[in-house]
Amino acid sequence: MAKELSAREDNYSQWYTDLVTKADLAENSAVRGCMVIKPYGYAIWERMQAALDKMFKDTGHQNAYFPLFIPKSFFSKEASHVEGFAKECAVVTHYRLKTGPDGKGVVVDEDARLEEELIVRPTSETIIWDTYRNWIQSYRDLPLLINQWANVVRWEMRTRLFLRTAEFLWQEGHTAHATMQEAVDEAEQMLRVYAEFAEEWMALPVLKGVKSPNERFAGAVETYCIEALMQDGKALQAGTSHFLGQNFAKAFDVKFLSKENKQEYVWATSWGVSTRLMGALVMSHSDNNGLVLPPKLAPIQVVIVPIYRNDEQMKAISAKALEIKKMLELRNIRVKYDDRDTQKPGFKFTEWEFKGVPLRIAIGPRDLENGTVEVARRDTLEKEVLQMTGIDQKAENLLEQIQKNLFQKALDFRNLNTFKVETWSEFLEQIEKGGFVVAHWDGTAETEQKIKEETKATIRLIPIEGEQKEGTCVYSGKPSKQRVYFARAY
Amino acid sequence: MAKELSAREDNYSQWYTDLVTKADLAENSAVRGCMVIKPYGYAIWERMQAALDKMFKDTGHQNAYFPLFIPKSFFSKEASHVEGFAKECAVVTHYRLKTGPDGKGVVVDEDARLEEELIVRPTSETIIWDTYRNWIQSYRDLPLLINQWANVVRWEMRTRLFLRTAEFLWQEGHTAHATMQEAVDEAEQMLRVYAEFAEEWMALPVLKGVKSPNERFAGAVETYCIEALMQDGKALQAGTSHFLGQNFAKAFDVKFLSKENKQEYVWATSWGVSTRLMGALVMSHSDNNGLVLPPKLAPIQVVIVPIYRNDEQMKAISAKALEIKKMLELRNIRVKYDDRDTQKPGFKFTEWEFKGVPLRIAIGPRDLENGTVEVARRDTLEKEVLQMTGIDQKAENLLEQIQKNLFQKALDFRNLNTFKVETWSEFLEQIEKGGFVVAHWDGTAETEQKIKEETKATIRLIPIEGEQKEGTCVYSGKPSKQRVYFARAY
Repeated sequence: MAKELSAREDNYSQWYTDLVTKADLAENSAVRGCMVIKPYGYAIWERMQAALDKMFKDTGHQNAYFPLFIPKSFFSKEASHVEGFAKECAVVTHYRLKTGPDGKGVVVDEDARLEEELIVRPTSETIIWDTYRNWIQSYRDLPLLINQWANVVRWEMRTRLFLRTAEFLWQEGHTAHATMQEAVDEAEQMLRVYAEFAEEWMALPVLKGVKSPNERFAGAVETYCIEALMQDGKALQAGTSHFLGQNFAKAFDVKFLSKENKQEYVWATSWGVSTRLMGALVMSHSDNNGLVLPPKLAPIQVVIVPIYRNDEQMKAISAKALEIKKMLELRNIRVKYDDRDTQKPGFKFTEWEFKGVPLRIAIGPRDLENGTVEVARRDTLEKEVLQMTGIDQKAENLLEQIQKNLFQKALDFRNLNTFKVETWSEFLEQIEKGGFVVAHWDGTAETEQKIKEETKATIRLIPIEGEQKEGTCVYSGKPSKQRVYFARAY
Repeated sequence: MAKELSAREDNYSQWYTDLVTKADLAENSAVRGCMVIKPYGYAIWERMQAALDKMFKDTGHQNAYFPLFIPKSFFSKEASHVEGFAKECAVVTHYRLKTGPDGKGVVVDEDARLEEELIVRPTSETIIWDTYRNWIQSYRDLPLLINQWANVVRWEMRTRLFLRTAEFLWQEGHTAHATMQEAVDEAEQMLRVYAEFAEEWMALPVLKGVKSPNERFAGAVETYCIEALMQDGKALQAGTSHFLGQNFAKAFDVKFLSKENKQEYVWATSWGVSTRLMGALVMSHSDNNGLVLPPKLAPIQVVIVPIYRNDEQMKAISAKALEIKKMLELRNIRVKYDDRDTQKPGFKFTEWEFKGVPLRIAIGPRDLENGTVEVARRDTLEKEVLQMTGIDQKAENLLEQIQKNLFQKALDFRNLNTFKVETWSEFLEQIEKGGFVVAHWDGTAETEQKIKEETKATIRLIPIEGEQKEGTCVYSGKPSKQRVYFARAY
């Protein structure tokens, strides 16, 4: 192999870090906890952004941009929000540097202290609802359906590339509605949008549900979430959508004149996904040969590698390769022709495999004679020799198959690793093995906390789909309204 | 008029601010100097981004993302850079808040002081070149052609929406090359890209040139720029591209092994345009009726307004309007059908005029009878009645004409307001009238400074196109190599 990659089964965590850094997705920067997203990683993120942005616009949302900084006092306005967010934040206290006393370097100019400190946004509910107060007067101004693509900062002590970084990129939707029902519908709609994106684009099966009160977003009345299972059996929260009730409207005094001519507080939602999805993408499909990317998000979908011994062969093969490239591009397939003369075919095969390119087409002198190409699938590592005729259609079909296969594989894995348990000893046994443990819970924060302390497992979600049967809490033996999903999580 | 707008000729500055806020482009936020970009304004910015991003990718660049924060010490590494940038910056000193002593609100936790302060990036050369050190070993790693879309912060004391704000959005390209010539070519190429974007998309004629040493970017060997003339006769720098020599490579120790097997410092460029372009767009074309947007950037290119007295008429007109909308959309024209029943046609006309929609189509009962529509152009305010047949083709043609006309109008204005002067008294007289004053300059910083002090005019650029003749400095009477462009500027 071209690059050293820890085996997935030996050290999953190192395997993940190796993949992210060596496949050129991201790396740590000189600033603690902040990452550099490298061009190859950013190209995947751009495809995620484009797909999500279209889905947001198709559901009536518009983009806008709000300030990076939030006055400190804003955080105290919504009581539970401040508890959840105002603590681990980057705080701007000064607005000027000056030359150091030794005449070298720069030091903070103490004369340039801000009257009120500014917080680098960890999330934007407060500054946005402060703005909405001026935008909303009447029911005619509602609903207000706005999204923002932005960077946010949360001062995390332990960081991991993409999964948990001090600065990350995300989108945050913030909507305002005239009625509670409309806001709930919006929060649920956006959950469905996220689930559709995860499944259709990332080939990542997700469960939909709500969080326990304990795991809710700070300031939310209800937090909807999608949860996915990674290959090491740990769960990962891939997106959240919050019904915020009138909490922020009350905190920032945002009222509207209703159709019935009454002053009422506005109903709110917020919802977001972040570059954390990049981590989920890497962890769901990749293997010991490197990244495996779903075709819909792969920056390069097909790589063509020429196999030749001399210039003459290379010339003939290149002509054919470029012809194929053109045919594929006419079908909007993203193709790279790797004609570097500094590397051997074997090196190129390994490299593009490592980078997760879904399809590889190799063309050698015998292929030219026979009118064939060798096609290799990244997901199954299968190779076959195909007639060159109609290769564009075949490649298109294969890419679709790979997209579907990755989803199915991940779904099978999740199904194999989801266990219904009835007793506490079964719970303990199963949770050690990883996966989702589906068990009855008495609905109390105490039991939730005890289970977390004893097993490190949290309630990932309370399902909102499927059959909901009553039972007995796996821990306390008290009555339970329905089963919930437990797992250890990222 | 629906909205109060100061007259352009009475108070240009207020006219601008009125336009930006009342046409829903942007507004000031609760944070001093930081703006909120509203959905209509952001939709224009998104179109600018999309067009520029494509041009960058077509010239071989890739996007990436670097940290928001830069360690303070990085700024001291490049001597002239620190002078230009490290002074008016947002400084992060702490990473935690805690509940206030009174049990209410939050205060900065003094125990959570950073060992080294972090600066919110005012521009990213330092953090990027610190990263490039690990990315570049050999000539095979070059050129490195990277762009970043990001927010940056410069603590401006006097701010104006879009033109000068503490936080703004921009793109910054940062490239690394093996030879000086390649880097110079890159800087010049990106200047041409910016000029093409300004002229083709914004309908904004620009002059291309280089800055005087005095006006160069802090850390640059040469600063290329495009300059445009606003309707009040003031110049506006619309984009810059810098040849950075080996300054940052030396400051951050970025060397590569050349083909000749020698360790050499890397050559650099950087280039950027920002949301300032939004200000330039507003100021170049708009009038006392509101915004005038070039069709290529207008979020809505055609608005259809029905004129009716009763439901029956409305129904028939709506059917026809939706038919036209569909026809236009098949040509990728962005259309809005304004069927609000809460507003009269006159109100709608004024509103869309104010928002700069290039074309308005009105349909009334008589139009239905006659198979006609009334079409109004925003740029000339001309109206004509056209046959409905082929209206899609006609609209497409009109949009192209409007795009061209806006450019031509702006070009004519600039030509009318560009003056060659030979004497100092002519210079003084002309500079008071506004516009570009093209005069000989002796090339010294002293003369440049004196002229600035006496007239508030700066050298906007030293032309790099056209004929360059020697002469006598308009101020000092000393020899001059070529004429340069002076103006008062934003």
